[in-house]
Amino acid sequence: MINITFPDGAVRQYEQGSTAMDIAKKISEGLARKTLAAQVNGEVWDLSRPIKNDATIQFLTWDDEKGKSTFWHSSAHLMAEAVEDVFPGVKFWVGPPVEKGFYYDMDLGENIITESDLEKLEKKMNELSKQNNSFTRKEISKADAIKYFTEKGDEYKLDLLSNLEDGNITFYTQGNFTDLCRGPHIPSTGLIKGIKLTGISGAYWKGDEKNKMLTRIYGVTFPNQKELDEYLIFLEEAKKRDHRKLGKELGIYTMDDDVGPGLVLWMPNGTIIIEELEKLAKETELEAGYKRVVTPHIAKENLYLTSGHLPYYQESMYPPMELEGVKYYLKAMNCPHHHKIFAAQQHSYKDLPLRLAEYGTCYRYEQSGELFGLMRVRCLHMNDAHIYCTKEQFASEFRAVNDMYIKYFKIFGIEKYVMRLSLHDPKKLGQKYVNEPELWIETEAMVRQVMKDANIPFVEVPDEAAFYGPKIDVQIWSAIGKEFTLATNQVDFAQGRRFGLEFKNQNNEMETPLIIHRAPLGTHERFIGFLLEHYAGKFPLWLSPVQVKILPISDKFLSYAENILSQLKNNDIRAEIDERSEKIGKKIRETELAKVPLMLIIGEKEMNESKVSVRRQGKGDEGTKTAEEFIEMVKEEVKNKTQIN
Amino acid sequence: MINITFPDGAVRQYEQGSTAMDIAKKISEGLARKTLAAQVNGEVWDLSRPIKNDATIQFLTWDDEKGKSTFWHSSAHLMAEAVEDVFPGVKFWVGPPVEKGFYYDMDLGENIITESDLEKLEKKMNELSKQNNSFTRKEISKADAIKYFTEKGDEYKLDLLSNLEDGNITFYTQGNFTDLCRGPHIPSTGLIKGIKLTGISGAYWKGDEKNKMLTRIYGVTFPNQKELDEYLIFLEEAKKRDHRKLGKELGIYTMDDDVGPGLVLWMPNGTIIIEELEKLAKETELEAGYKRVVTPHIAKENLYLTSGHLPYYQESMYPPMELEGVKYYLKAMNCPHHHKIFAAQQHSYKDLPLRLAEYGTCYRYEQSGELFGLMRVRCLHMNDAHIYCTKEQFASEFRAVNDMYIKYFKIFGIEKYVMRLSLHDPKKLGQKYVNEPELWIETEAMVRQVMKDANIPFVEVPDEAAFYGPKIDVQIWSAIGKEFTLATNQVDFAQGRRFGLEFKNQNNEMETPLIIHRAPLGTHERFIGFLLEHYAGKFPLWLSPVQVKILPISDKFLSYAENILSQLKNNDIRAEIDERSEKIGKKIRETELAKVPLMLIIGEKEMNESKVSVRRQGKGDEGTKTAEEFIEMVKEEVKNKTQIN
Repeated sequence: MINITFPDGAVRQYEQGSTAMDIAKKISEGLARKTLAAQVNGEVWDLSRPIKNDATIQFLTWDDEKGKSTFWHSSAHLMAEAVEDVFPGVKFWVGPPVEKGFYYDMDLGENIITESDLEKLEKKMNELSKQNNSFTRKEISKADAIKYFTEKGDEYKLDLLSNLEDGNITFYTQGNFTDLCRGPHIPSTGLIKGIKLTGISGAYWKGDEKNKMLTRIYGVTFPNQKELDEYLIFLEEAKKRDHRKLGKELGIYTMDDDVGPGLVLWMPNGTIIIEELEKLAKETELEAGYKRVVTPHIAKENLYLTSGHLPYYQESMYPPMELEGVKYYLKAMNCPHHHKIFAAQQHSYKDLPLRLAEYGTCYRYEQSGELFGLMRVRCLHMNDAHIYCTKEQFASEFRAVNDMYIKYFKIFGIEKYVMRLSLHDPKKLGQKYVNEPELWIETEAMVRQVMKDANIPFVEVPDEAAFYGPKIDVQIWSAIGKEFTLATNQVDFAQGRRFGLEFKNQNNEMETPLIIHRAPLGTHERFIGFLLEHYAGKFPLWLSPVQVKILPISDKFLSYAENILSQLKNNDIRAEIDERSEKIGKKIRETELAKVPLMLIIGEKEMNESKVSVRRQGKGDEGTKTAEEFIEMVKEEVKNKTQIN
Repeated sequence: MINITFPDGAVRQYEQGSTAMDIAKKISEGLARKTLAAQVNGEVWDLSRPIKNDATIQFLTWDDEKGKSTFWHSSAHLMAEAVEDVFPGVKFWVGPPVEKGFYYDMDLGENIITESDLEKLEKKMNELSKQNNSFTRKEISKADAIKYFTEKGDEYKLDLLSNLEDGNITFYTQGNFTDLCRGPHIPSTGLIKGIKLTGISGAYWKGDEKNKMLTRIYGVTFPNQKELDEYLIFLEEAKKRDHRKLGKELGIYTMDDDVGPGLVLWMPNGTIIIEELEKLAKETELEAGYKRVVTPHIAKENLYLTSGHLPYYQESMYPPMELEGVKYYLKAMNCPHHHKIFAAQQHSYKDLPLRLAEYGTCYRYEQSGELFGLMRVRCLHMNDAHIYCTKEQFASEFRAVNDMYIKYFKIFGIEKYVMRLSLHDPKKLGQKYVNEPELWIETEAMVRQVMKDANIPFVEVPDEAAFYGPKIDVQIWSAIGKEFTLATNQVDFAQGRRFGLEFKNQNNEMETPLIIHRAPLGTHERFIGFLLEHYAGKFPLWLSPVQVKILPISDKFLSYAENILSQLKNNDIRAEIDERSEKIGKKIRETELAKVPLMLIIGEKEMNESKVSVRRQGKGDEGTKTAEEFIEMVKEEVKNKTQIN
């Protein structure tokens, strides 16, 4: 008998050689049905693999990240089986699960695959799924494996084999398809029900453009058709909300070849959003006791040697400019400049916490291939601040920062978010992490405690901290459930010392402050990209580039419209008149398309009654109001940042 | 007889060989007394030089720039005479007039001169002035001149001679001092009355650090003691107002060796001023129909090849960064980026004028030796905008920009300013200036007309235009009369075409817009430097980093003080409490020194009456008010931008 320990700590005994499936079935048939794989001693295993010794076990279902990725990995095998059926002679390279689905890279030889083939492949996959073939695992010697693929004439798998050690090689087979694969897999193909192949692209073998171009087929699968249908609707909606499409349509931003890739030019409409966000941040930070600074975008090499960005962060920095024999770098982060401002004056504990904020613009080198709309750029306007505090002040400061995040989530209607506490790895002290084992333990404990005390949902992730301390990564989900990485909130016990920052404590001794790096609104680039998708371009009133469009029914009412316009402008309301001699229906339609939140229809009746007819984007008529009433309503909505659309 | 034409166009006849002094005397003895030199056919001449042919004449006095510089050049000779007396054997290099005074570079051999010697030299200069020796001009052959300085053993003047052509060489003598000099000079030393030697420094011969270090003595002189006294008071006051000194004392900005020379780090107090200035600019520009944009700080080489900054402006740019085989430059101007935003959308004449504004940060390379506090820096935050307009719109747009300048002058209490209309030189078309003779004449005429119509005082300066069009340079004077160059307002008929910018005109044809470049508030760096000196650090209420300091008489009143503080903060008033247990007298003194405009004294009486005692910086007690009354007063002063200090 072996002892099996469950996640809740319970220990039960099972026969030696029991599989996870055996154990699941003993617990309940329901569990067995929905279990896809099991984590045995921390490693994901096939459900059918015998457990020979005492172990911990955790069943993985569709709801677990690792359950999903096993499911998608098996789906890649299923797709490969279908491809082999449709394109005999195909040779496969690798087929991993990805964030949402899977792909497989393959050499189709002389065959050419087109989008129209995908449907055929899906059909085949559905057939194979119905066969409900088991995924079976077989350990094989390296020699036998080489023999198998040599006979098959598959140079790709032979290449993979050349890097594997004997005794550690497994084949997986389902139906007529056998693949060199480390696994694990789900029990059988019948579990894969909602199947969609989402695209084809070229991919160089091993990612090297000198190599042959392989064919990559992307797909996504679900345990049932309903989830697939929902996902396809999500995809459709996400496409409509693509920030690159909306960004162009709404005049938010542009890019230019002569300026350079990843360098955003913010157009007037985008700049209004930037300024509203900065206003919000400044007001929020002023209230929270921050002070503002402005620093240059470049500095001498020496600054980054002190900070440790050189050489550790050099790959992400622009190359230097050499002037008067000195190398200057574009800043990739604002912290070193802020530290210099801290250092410019003497400080006593009475001055702390000192919170220095700046919407600082940083430059980071991302490879051309990685650039993506506003999400991956090279110029970043960052909602940055650095808080210099004593150890005693740390908990309340860190908590206040988290509270600020949550305050913003409410304002922007972000309902789903997760904070990930990224910790160091003690094995990598002195390499990836500053070699201060005690300070790591201490600050990680402090952060953990703050999160617990504040009842903030968080997960812990080992080996993802910054080099100078633990951090909180914030993931948010848009209105349609698309995931975005927003920002980080970091503790830094190292840079203060590197920069020789100090304050006089209550005992008249010089002490190094702790530093919190934080950027709740992330960068303008990513955050506005997120907001475009989150709101589908229908910004709430306070953020809308144009808040009110005045639509006179005919030229006769232009002067009354102008009178209304000037009243709105005097009240800092962003308004415009559609002066064209177009039919009112057309004006309304176009204003709806431009996603202006409020329209004022001005005709005979409105002019005679000294009123305006109010229409709301996507909602329609809201009746007539006097200009004063309307202005009051707008001001109230703007003040409350009400999201009505 | 010769015909002499006067500046008013009058022509009178004089004997051939008359000197300007002869002519001046015939007009009036008063004129003759105050005339220092004369401009004959556009060239400055000694008053004693015979005029042999018909000529135009203009008498130059102390009130003329050229009169002053002749006076100071003669003063340099007077100083040299004194130096030769005190340090026999001294050899002189060159001694030109400068913006305010003059200097002379010299080789003192084994002698060492110290500040204390300056008084001795001043005394000697005063003696020599009393002798009222004439400055006499003598034409001399190159051979004789070389003989003279060879005998004197003066290698410096021989070096100068080596570059002069025979027939074009003159000596000037006053008293016992003779110098190789092109002149002109004032009639005699007796005119030089207020004498002050202001400093000594080292200066490499010919400015080359490989050469010998010479001694440079600076001085300034006036036609009477009173003007010197006033100037010395001005110097004293200017020293107190030095923006570098105040900038440090008031926590406005700092510089750091690790960041780099000329790169300003704006501290919290400076950032408040920056943000108030930006707020003013944004409000002003919004009202004037500008739209805002945000652009990156770098661009590919190609952008600057299109704009013409490369190679014409390359010396003032930072060196490139090379990335993926492409050169990127830090932007030295915002225009090319703005042009790209203009080009990103199609435009009809109905969209014009399009006014794109940005407080853009530019980087310019100034030589280390040229850097000076906030006045000459390498990172410039510019109050920039570009107006794209039709020819028909040009006059009203250009005028509106000038009006904006004047609006700002009023706000900042700038009473003295001059606009210089800088024109092209037809001889340099195709070299220094875009080769479009007709467009030059046309736009210069347009600008001249706008200035005349608006009754704006201006002077015309040939050969100082931008390469793409005429411009207005704005000079302003601070409260104590120190001159600053603020900004320029430029017309650009060339870049639109270089960038292929166009709009569809009323005839449905594509047309290139005219572009106005403007920056009324100049750069934050220079403007805040100016304001520090203009206000002597005593910023008006709306600009003050701390507007109100609350001074409780003892700890007993702290909680009442905090109550007042929170009321002020709720009304967006920047206030602080001096919580220290110091005597009230000390608190007041220190707050005065920190130049906080308003103080609230809080004691027993104030607390019992629910009032505050108001004190104004530099003015003293202003009686008691309720918190509400005080808040109203502050809001009113802030709104009106009243300058009371």
